[in-house]
Amino acid sequence: MERKDGRKNDQLRKYKINRHFQIHPAGSVLIEMGNTKVICAATIEDRVPSFLKGTGEGWLTAEYSLLPSATNTRTSREAARGKQTGRTQEIQRLIGRSLRSVMDLKALGERTVTVDCDVIQADGGTRTASITGAFIAVVEACATVYDGTKPFPVKDFLSAISVGISASGEPILDLNYEEDSSCIVDMNVVRTGMGQFVEVQGTGEGRPFSREEMDNLLALAEKGTDELISYEKDILGNDLVWKVGRE
Amino acid sequence: MERKDGRKNDQLRKYKINRHFQIHPAGSVLIEMGNTKVICAATIEDRVPSFLKGTGEGWLTAEYSLLPSATNTRTSREAARGKQTGRTQEIQRLIGRSLRSVMDLKALGERTVTVDCDVIQADGGTRTASITGAFIAVVEACATVYDGTKPFPVKDFLSAISVGISASGEPILDLNYEEDSSCIVDMNVVRTGMGQFVEVQGTGEGRPFSREEMDNLLALAEKGTDELISYEKDILGNDLVWKVGRE
Amino acid sequence: MERKDGRKNDQLRKYKINRHFQIHPAGSVLIEMGNTKVICAATIEDRVPSFLKGTGEGWLTAEYSLLPSATNTRTSREAARGKQTGRTQEIQRLIGRSLRSVMDLKALGERTVTVDCDVIQADGGTRTASITGAFIAVVEACATVYDGTKPFPVKDFLSAISVGISASGEPILDLNYEEDSSCIVDMNVVRTGMGQFVEVQGTGEGRPFSREEMDNLLALAEKGTDELISYEKDILGNDLVWKVGRE
Amino acid sequence: MERKDGRKNDQLRKYKINRHFQIHPAGSVLIEMGNTKVICAATIEDRVPSFLKGTGEGWLTAEYSLLPSATNTRTSREAARGKQTGRTQEIQRLIGRSLRSVMDLKALGERTVTVDCDVIQADGGTRTASITGAFIAVVEACATVYDGTKPFPVKDFLSAISVGISASGEPILDLNYEEDSSCIVDMNVVRTGMGQFVEVQGTGEGRPFSREEMDNLLALAEKGTDELISYEKDILGNDLVWKVGRE
Amino acid sequence: MERKDGRKNDQLRKYKINRHFQIHPAGSVLIEMGNTKVICAATIEDRVPSFLKGTGEGWLTAEYSLLPSATNTRTSREAARGKQTGRTQEIQRLIGRSLRSVMDLKALGERTVTVDCDVIQADGGTRTASITGAFIAVVEACATVYDGTKPFPVKDFLSAISVGISASGEPILDLNYEEDSSCIVDMNVVRTGMGQFVEVQGTGEGRPFSREEMDNLLALAEKGTDELISYEKDILGNDLVWKVGRE
Amino acid sequence: MERKDGRKNDQLRKYKINRHFQIHPAGSVLIEMGNTKVICAATIEDRVPSFLKGTGEGWLTAEYSLLPSATNTRTSREAARGKQTGRTQEIQRLIGRSLRSVMDLKALGERTVTVDCDVIQADGGTRTASITGAFIAVVEACATVYDGTKPFPVKDFLSAISVGISASGEPILDLNYEEDSSCIVDMNVVRTGMGQFVEVQGTGEGRPFSREEMDNLLALAEKGTDELISYEKDILGNDLVWKVGRE
Repeated sequence: MERKDGRKNDQLRKYKINRHFQIHPAGSVLIEMGNTKVICAATIEDRVPSFLKGTGEGWLTAEYSLLPSATNTRTSREAARGKQTGRTQEIQRLIGRSLRSVMDLKALGERTVTVDCDVIQADGGTRTASITGAFIAVVEACATVYDGTKPFPVKDFLSAISVGISASGEPILDLNYEEDSSCIVDMNVVRTGMGQFVEVQGTGEGRPFSREEMDNLLALAEKGTDELISYEKDILGNDLVWKVGRE
Repeated sequence: MERKDGRKNDQLRKYKINRHFQIHPAGSVLIEMGNTKVICAATIEDRVPSFLKGTGEGWLTAEYSLLPSATNTRTSREAARGKQTGRTQEIQRLIGRSLRSVMDLKALGERTVTVDCDVIQADGGTRTASITGAFIAVVEACATVYDGTKPFPVKDFLSAISVGISASGEPILDLNYEEDSSCIVDMNVVRTGMGQFVEVQGTGEGRPFSREEMDNLLALAEKGTDELISYEKDILGNDLVWKVGRE
Repeated sequence: MERKDGRKNDQLRKYKINRHFQIHPAGSVLIEMGNTKVICAATIEDRVPSFLKGTGEGWLTAEYSLLPSATNTRTSREAARGKQTGRTQEIQRLIGRSLRSVMDLKALGERTVTVDCDVIQADGGTRTASITGAFIAVVEACATVYDGTKPFPVKDFLSAISVGISASGEPILDLNYEEDSSCIVDMNVVRTGMGQFVEVQGTGEGRPFSREEMDNLLALAEKGTDELISYEKDILGNDLVWKVGRE
Repeated sequence: MERKDGRKNDQLRKYKINRHFQIHPAGSVLIEMGNTKVICAATIEDRVPSFLKGTGEGWLTAEYSLLPSATNTRTSREAARGKQTGRTQEIQRLIGRSLRSVMDLKALGERTVTVDCDVIQADGGTRTASITGAFIAVVEACATVYDGTKPFPVKDFLSAISVGISASGEPILDLNYEEDSSCIVDMNVVRTGMGQFVEVQGTGEGRPFSREEMDNLLALAEKGTDELISYEKDILGNDLVWKVGRE
Repeated sequence: MERKDGRKNDQLRKYKINRHFQIHPAGSVLIEMGNTKVICAATIEDRVPSFLKGTGEGWLTAEYSLLPSATNTRTSREAARGKQTGRTQEIQRLIGRSLRSVMDLKALGERTVTVDCDVIQADGGTRTASITGAFIAVVEACATVYDGTKPFPVKDFLSAISVGISASGEPILDLNYEEDSSCIVDMNVVRTGMGQFVEVQGTGEGRPFSREEMDNLLALAEKGTDELISYEKDILGNDLVWKVGRE
Repeated sequence: MERKDGRKNDQLRKYKINRHFQIHPAGSVLIEMGNTKVICAATIEDRVPSFLKGTGEGWLTAEYSLLPSATNTRTSREAARGKQTGRTQEIQRLIGRSLRSVMDLKALGERTVTVDCDVIQADGGTRTASITGAFIAVVEACATVYDGTKPFPVKDFLSAISVGISASGEPILDLNYEEDSSCIVDMNVVRTGMGQFVEVQGTGEGRPFSREEMDNLLALAEKGTDELISYEKDILGNDLVWKVGRE
């Protein structure tokens, strides 16, 4: 069965990453996965949280937000309500944890990388698009402080994708909002350039799922993240690709 | 004396408004004034604040925010700190008040227009760019509910610009961030298509100013807002221009 | 290699559930998994969130908290700081989602079940212990409103456990705090009485993990959750076991 | 007239203090006064509030909370609402002030004792039970830092009880929730081992009260607090009893 | 021993109540007790808290605040910090409870009296001055809605005073800030026109106190509250005095 | 056309400033403009915000609040709601900015002047009355730290007034609440003793305004601020008048 937008079950949406999107941050991209669009920026500051002072190690932290106008019906503004929702906090913890998994925080030195993922248009998969886009912004930002005396602070490539089981029971890759709202199982997967898993978060929304279904979803996610990592290498160019993982 | 970016004292920066920028809101534009870029969206909902229930009148409210990555050095996220700054609240009150001045809230009926101005890149003049951009988004949004039985809810054109007295004592139009940081008098002016004032907010940052200086600034502002209103008419096109102010 | 506390890699800690632990809530248990102790209570109220009013469906929501005195070094009190941490919100969202997956919310009718998981002593695995304990409290609470005219609101059994890869590279079941702090991969798994997955949340803390390691962890989790579900049946007794899933 | 639960007017409920209730805090007890159950923990940290830095003196502070599931009908969680109620703040100020009255803060040195009183089941008298239970936890905690070179930081015994005038006009000791809800005068009394008053807080709930009624209530409170202090000595054992007040 | 300001131990400071102090509220006074000055206003609105809707009964609630400039060293503004201190909440609960004790809330009907006590200058005894002043404002406000068909909503007179044991061991009446800061026992007493107690709150600040000391303090408080009630009758005038307690 | 209260269009309300109104702050006045009454206090502390540490410069900051009982219908208390409104923040930013414009912050040295404007009765023009009153309080406060070795920290006189266009289309000076609520244009003007402008904030409430109307309003404001500055000199007396602007 074909998907509403004509894609095959194992096909990603049209994707694109615009580098150097903003003039101020050290790294900045606009990532588009279909109609989902996220501005991902990375800022580097010469300070660390107090628990790291004097250790020589750095830190990476992430924040995530939806523009009120980004969603189908307007989302109320968190700054106006005075607090971030549980969903926002969960997503920004996931983004930060995922990116830290490929960071060499010793090589970074006593600096903090702050990643801002601001969704300007949402159509499903905003958290995985944020991770993929932020990865590029972090590489851009780290290149601005890299002087070759220590390893490059980014050790491996990283990308993320959503997979799920559709309402009709089929495993599908890279769900848009409509598919996400109706799917019965939903899974977000973060993987490295070496082909290993950093995060697997699967949830039975409509019903529990079997071990076999889980295996099918993981295989789809492997295909999607591999394709995105290949694209990341294209747009980073030889000079930056060569730096990632360099000791 | 020429300005650092080569502009004449009475010259606007390069400006551009992209209409239909986002797919979800009823009205949405990206406005650029030089390096300042703001997403302005207008959403219409069939509800009004409690003080208007049953009156047949509508309301317009505005929210404003800077992306943390939009500024020279990263701005901390208001949603994370749990409250909006005084500056943010002052700006969103100004945007809302300015737009309401050209609205026919009776013609709108019991609906609320919510305007979201999200600055994705800041280089001075974000509040005035927000007003000009939001005006277009509001016209777009009102057109989606206009059926000809009542007047069009937008009565007149509206644009805004900043003017100031530079460090060297000269009146200048449309200050960028560097000029804004060093100017000695700073003024924001909002004007209608009929050439009248809606808001005049002048502040002596470095020193007080004379009545004559004020007159010079107002003249510059008249030139800038006239040019922007002319551009608004170009990009709205005949069909929408014809609607504005139609009874 | 044997674990510090003498357990085998695939062995649960000593566990125990005390039913009817508090006198006020409709359902209440104290669950102990080794030194981890959680009070899980379920309250039923005749109201639903506004998005469910008039639908005939009910809701289940969960809250989670650590007593300040429950942890190794005192945890600051969230009520005193004025907000819940991201970790707390993430955990209570997980507990709520997991329990809802085995609820028949139509059969519940327009009622809300509120689950409170308050950790009085923490030694690793507090979120999975909360889910297992809360499941029993919810069954107790639903029995107080069940009159046989509709299906029993709980459709299947549910338990949860943590698994991980230890510092020495071995897959281990039911990590205590010390093991959790030093492990290199950490996974929480929620499973039903029918042997299917409701949640799988795996994180590479120290390094990414391979597909094979993931398979080993899932197998361990299956063993642990099966044993807990068997224990749940023992302590619920025939009368309540018979009700679960009854249509 | 006999009380509903069969007690005489001047009789305490069945009481019990379990020492060493939690494994992490320096001092920890579970106190039960009838169905009222409170976990009282005392933690000692090597820091003081800024107004005491460099003075050689220590501090004691208290926090109080009700588990949402502790009460007759569920109490909403303060951490979720984002602030503590006035009642909570009033109670924790009372607990802290009462305990400080028997502390030798110079002898404690530059340390802070944090007392956490978490009510896991409420049936009247939670604030007085918290004071009595916390006293034991504080003695336990102080013993862990006492080395005999300075006086023991606890100078005297301390206990607390509620008294009141019942709906039928009789003075009664140790009110349970039902009695507390219907009484016309309510008084909380904190007393030392030397038989003196630390706090007397009397409130005419249903009507004002006379000087004679006040005298009767104080006499009842003296009886109750004396009995509790005698029990405190029993459960602390000779070694700790000998330390209290030792110079 | 004479007090620093020349008063005898049983002597009140110079006191004065200015009625009709503000033009907007239904009742408004400025009360001065020595240098302590409090604006007490009472507003009546035709609404009640939800737990009273449809019962025919009214409510009285109180709020209390210190102007930042009212104190010896500036007090930080609660509105700026975003929350009220525990001290503020405790005081406003005391004021509300004390005033409700002389209200006939049935006679008030479904209305809410809101009492605002704003301290414009603080020199000890602000909470007791607030109660005494607010009593007059409440009588003024109730008179504006009294039509003789039901009893007058204020049943009895009410006044409050502080007493204490000075650093030199003597019982003293109406402590100023300096005396309050150095006293070893501190007690606030609220009494009715019939000579009965509504609130007694005694605290051993420097040391515990004996039963005999308590008796001495209560006697002083009786003297002080009697004198204030006599003054209240003077300034209310025959017409209002006649209304209080009228059925 | 005469105004309701009998004033001419260019006439101020009856005004009065009571100096030394409170005993604790370094400077304190009660300013009355008709029925509008504001307590303005200035406190000087030996600390500066972190961005000024070590620069030798001082700071001035302002806070503003309405007593709940100050307004026509009771205003809810910001401290109770847990945040300041946008209006409050806008006003206190205006007050601070205006006063800083006449401060020599270098001459002040590393000190902070905190200005508290607390409105005890509101009848229009509270923000401009706050600025005029606070000016006197700041002069009083600066005199307490002035030793003649540096210039006096206040460089010039400052006053503020509101002007507007009435419902009947006439320019009027110093609007009371009723005039303010019905006016079609509203403008606040802050001016120095040298006759220059510090702030001009004009808003078309009911309709936009022409350049000519603006000129008329500025002329009225010049008249009003000149008269107030003349009064300021009267009440400051020779000694303080001589200090203002002294180098």
